[in-house]
Amino acid sequence: MLYHVFMDVKIPRDLPAEEAAEIIAREKAYSQDLQRSGKWRHIWRVAGQYANISIFDVRDNAELHEILSGLPLFPFMDIKVTPLLRHPSAVREDDS
Amino acid sequence: MLYHVFMDVKIPRDLPAEEAAEIIAREKAYSQDLQRSGKWRHIWRVAGQYANISIFDVRDNAELHEILSGLPLFPFMDIKVTPLLRHPSAVREDDS
Amino acid sequence: MLYHVFMDVKIPRDLPAEEAAEIIAREKAYSQDLQRSGKWRHIWRVAGQYANISIFDVRDNAELHEILSGLPLFPFMDIKVTPLLRHPSAVREDDS
Amino acid sequence: MLYHVFMDVKIPRDLPAEEAAEIIAREKAYSQDLQRSGKWRHIWRVAGQYANISIFDVRDNAELHEILSGLPLFPFMDIKVTPLLRHPSAVREDDS
Amino acid sequence: MLYHVFMDVKIPRDLPAEEAAEIIAREKAYSQDLQRSGKWRHIWRVAGQYANISIFDVRDNAELHEILSGLPLFPFMDIKVTPLLRHPSAVREDDS
Amino acid sequence: MLYHVFMDVKIPRDLPAEEAAEIIAREKAYSQDLQRSGKWRHIWRVAGQYANISIFDVRDNAELHEILSGLPLFPFMDIKVTPLLRHPSAVREDDS
Amino acid sequence: MLYHVFMDVKIPRDLPAEEAAEIIAREKAYSQDLQRSGKWRHIWRVAGQYANISIFDVRDNAELHEILSGLPLFPFMDIKVTPLLRHPSAVREDDS
Amino acid sequence: MLYHVFMDVKIPRDLPAEEAAEIIAREKAYSQDLQRSGKWRHIWRVAGQYANISIFDVRDNAELHEILSGLPLFPFMDIKVTPLLRHPSAVREDDS
Amino acid sequence: MLYHVFMDVKIPRDLPAEEAAEIIAREKAYSQDLQRSGKWRHIWRVAGQYANISIFDVRDNAELHEILSGLPLFPFMDIKVTPLLRHPSAVREDDS
Amino acid sequence: MLYHVFMDVKIPRDLPAEEAAEIIAREKAYSQDLQRSGKWRHIWRVAGQYANISIFDVRDNAELHEILSGLPLFPFMDIKVTPLLRHPSAVREDDS
Repeated sequence: MLYHVFMDVKIPRDLPAEEAAEIIAREKAYSQDLQRSGKWRHIWRVAGQYANISIFDVRDNAELHEILSGLPLFPFMDIKVTPLLRHPSAVREDDS
Repeated sequence: MLYHVFMDVKIPRDLPAEEAAEIIAREKAYSQDLQRSGKWRHIWRVAGQYANISIFDVRDNAELHEILSGLPLFPFMDIKVTPLLRHPSAVREDDS
Repeated sequence: MLYHVFMDVKIPRDLPAEEAAEIIAREKAYSQDLQRSGKWRHIWRVAGQYANISIFDVRDNAELHEILSGLPLFPFMDIKVTPLLRHPSAVREDDS
Repeated sequence: MLYHVFMDVKIPRDLPAEEAAEIIAREKAYSQDLQRSGKWRHIWRVAGQYANISIFDVRDNAELHEILSGLPLFPFMDIKVTPLLRHPSAVREDDS
Repeated sequence: MLYHVFMDVKIPRDLPAEEAAEIIAREKAYSQDLQRSGKWRHIWRVAGQYANISIFDVRDNAELHEILSGLPLFPFMDIKVTPLLRHPSAVREDDS
Repeated sequence: MLYHVFMDVKIPRDLPAEEAAEIIAREKAYSQDLQRSGKWRHIWRVAGQYANISIFDVRDNAELHEILSGLPLFPFMDIKVTPLLRHPSAVREDDS
Repeated sequence: MLYHVFMDVKIPRDLPAEEAAEIIAREKAYSQDLQRSGKWRHIWRVAGQYANISIFDVRDNAELHEILSGLPLFPFMDIKVTPLLRHPSAVREDDS
Repeated sequence: MLYHVFMDVKIPRDLPAEEAAEIIAREKAYSQDLQRSGKWRHIWRVAGQYANISIFDVRDNAELHEILSGLPLFPFMDIKVTPLLRHPSAVREDDS
Repeated sequence: MLYHVFMDVKIPRDLPAEEAAEIIAREKAYSQDLQRSGKWRHIWRVAGQYANISIFDVRDNAELHEILSGLPLFPFMDIKVTPLLRHPSAVREDDS
Repeated sequence: MLYHVFMDVKIPRDLPAEEAAEIIAREKAYSQDLQRSGKWRHIWRVAGQYANISIFDVRDNAELHEILSGLPLFPFMDIKVTPLLRHPSAVREDDS
């Protein structure tokens, strides 16, 4: 089941640079593991912003929340979830 | 080059049903042609709304505008464009 | 799987009274069938508004959309969907 | 009498971790006591957010305020209250 | 129990003048009956707007909704309800 | 002359508890003096919020500002003023 | 006593041109009479909009409302009122 | 040439009181000099807010910006500029 | 003197197609005359919208308003004006 | 390819003055290099605000993001990107 997720990152200025770097590195690994598993299906950078738009393919709302609330950057993100479904005009097999 | 496009459809009540049906049929064909060509890369329905979220892969801003303003439903849509790019954590080859 | 749905109804003034009454009667039957089936788990009126707040328990995003877009009042509603999940502090067995 | 309450939690970064954990533990106990008493009728987590949607069944506005302003997390929450009533199409006995 | 209600009136231009006048006259009588009964405790005009701010003193959410949805101008109003309670600093006996 | 005032209080976390308590005590005395003088005609708590809705009866805009800017909690409040007048349907003598 | 008033005019397209012209002529005469009396102290056009920003000097909220609700264009305006007072740094005698 | 300027002041709590007082004193002198020169034509306090509404009469956009960015309180203000011109119904000679 | 102007066009559906075409043709001629005169310095289409972003170089606010209110599409546009000036980092001679 | 970029700068008060000055100097050099290269085609100051409106002419979304995220002031800016294209009424050769 698909979800559209917008993530806007605001890292506080008083977070020590090393701690920030370590969190960002963990975030990358966490994201790439989920991408390889197929659960984090797409991720794109929004031009001009420290933000991304992602598509998740998970079992249900609970699994989505478990993944999002486990993001190393979760405490520093504004997140907006939009549930998606197959569009009646879609031709691509895997857009659902 | 990738763009995120949100399309919200509001068909006016006084549009004759036949005319609406004909426009919607043309919209579907128009969309599917562009999907098959690879320019309209993804399209999903937003749950509970007469709206879609799409990803376009086009040459430039001008081509995107040409496609969107040519939509049969264009006069009845609110459209919001967000330019995207490859995310540094992306693993999928074709997310750029 | 649970969803929170806010439905705001705006029936256009030029809808003939009989047609409106017929649509509202169908809406009530449609809603009550789904409530009895367990899919439309709760429905409350918002004080002072022609609006309701509902909780749906459905298989997935697609089934939710099928139900909502099938509402007889769907063309006259603004709908906002919020995906829910079991809260870690919940004690009631069926709040998930 | 029923109320819909949306609670959005923002725990400040400079709250010591132990103090935060202690507040969250008290919040859970406080909530579960009220759930068992029947006053806090439902609580659900909002997917992707540190937020919940709850239904309260209390005597009046004053009791609702007493409960909400007594929440251990109250100083760290944005709260929005919507008064509810039985919907004319409701079939479930206890949705009022 | 007290509620703060903001009512913004927008009478459509195509409502025949006689029909509008008749509705407004019924609205006035309806309001004054409720004011005399004590349920519609205060009503003030907002300067520069066809709008009022009112305080209702009713049994519960359901009675408030019954009163508001019975307003002759209800179909032409945007209504916003805010539940109130006695303020801990209030000195006036009847502000609760 | 009447004014509707909405006051939303946000006491900063780093204000020492004693200082906050002293300010709140002064606020209460200040408010009650003005209530007894008849200038602060009504005050109600908004359910679920550290906020109040008040009605002032003062000589003019300048007196209203003098009162509001003199509130001990003024530096910690968002204030919104709405000028009121007697409603043509009002029956209560003192709602003007 | 001074008030800042923003008036945004939206004349409906289906208002016959002669009727619109007659209303606008009456509006101009009405405004100029009040300007000459000193009650409508200033009026400026907002660049690029069919809107004005005005300063009124009237006895009280009620007189302001009487003037504004008597505007020939009142049914076609969105109006926002902001109560003003003398600024402590003002040097001009008549800015109060 | 005339401009409408709304200035909302938010002095940070951690600004030392003496420094704040000194800035406010400089602001007052700066404003009064410009008022006497005729460039800062009007200034009014907004009731209930630490904000003002002003009218400037300056040569061009650049001079307006030079004046505003030179305000001692500029770093602590939200400023909104609206360009004005003579209204066709204005009777007062100097409202342009 | 420079102004940034955003123009959003909404042509009503009930405007006869010939009348719309004639207005759009006049708009184009009007715009191109002003572009050639140097007063309408830039015009760009916003991707995916029937809207443009323009830069005007005119004598003052009054001339800007005269030009904008004379646009054949003016009654069908939402217009937002932002006054500009030379940026201290600008290198291009004519960006002021 | 053209983009409209709005940049709103908020330098935190606790940034040491020297560090701020050094960042601003680097920002100016960075901007001027890009202006001379033709990629940062226009930059204007917004009157009354620490903000600018710019036009970029770059290869694609990715190059725009690389430039914007490399701005020395990037961590202190709110940035909004709007993709542009040649307007059908444009006469100036280089507005595309």
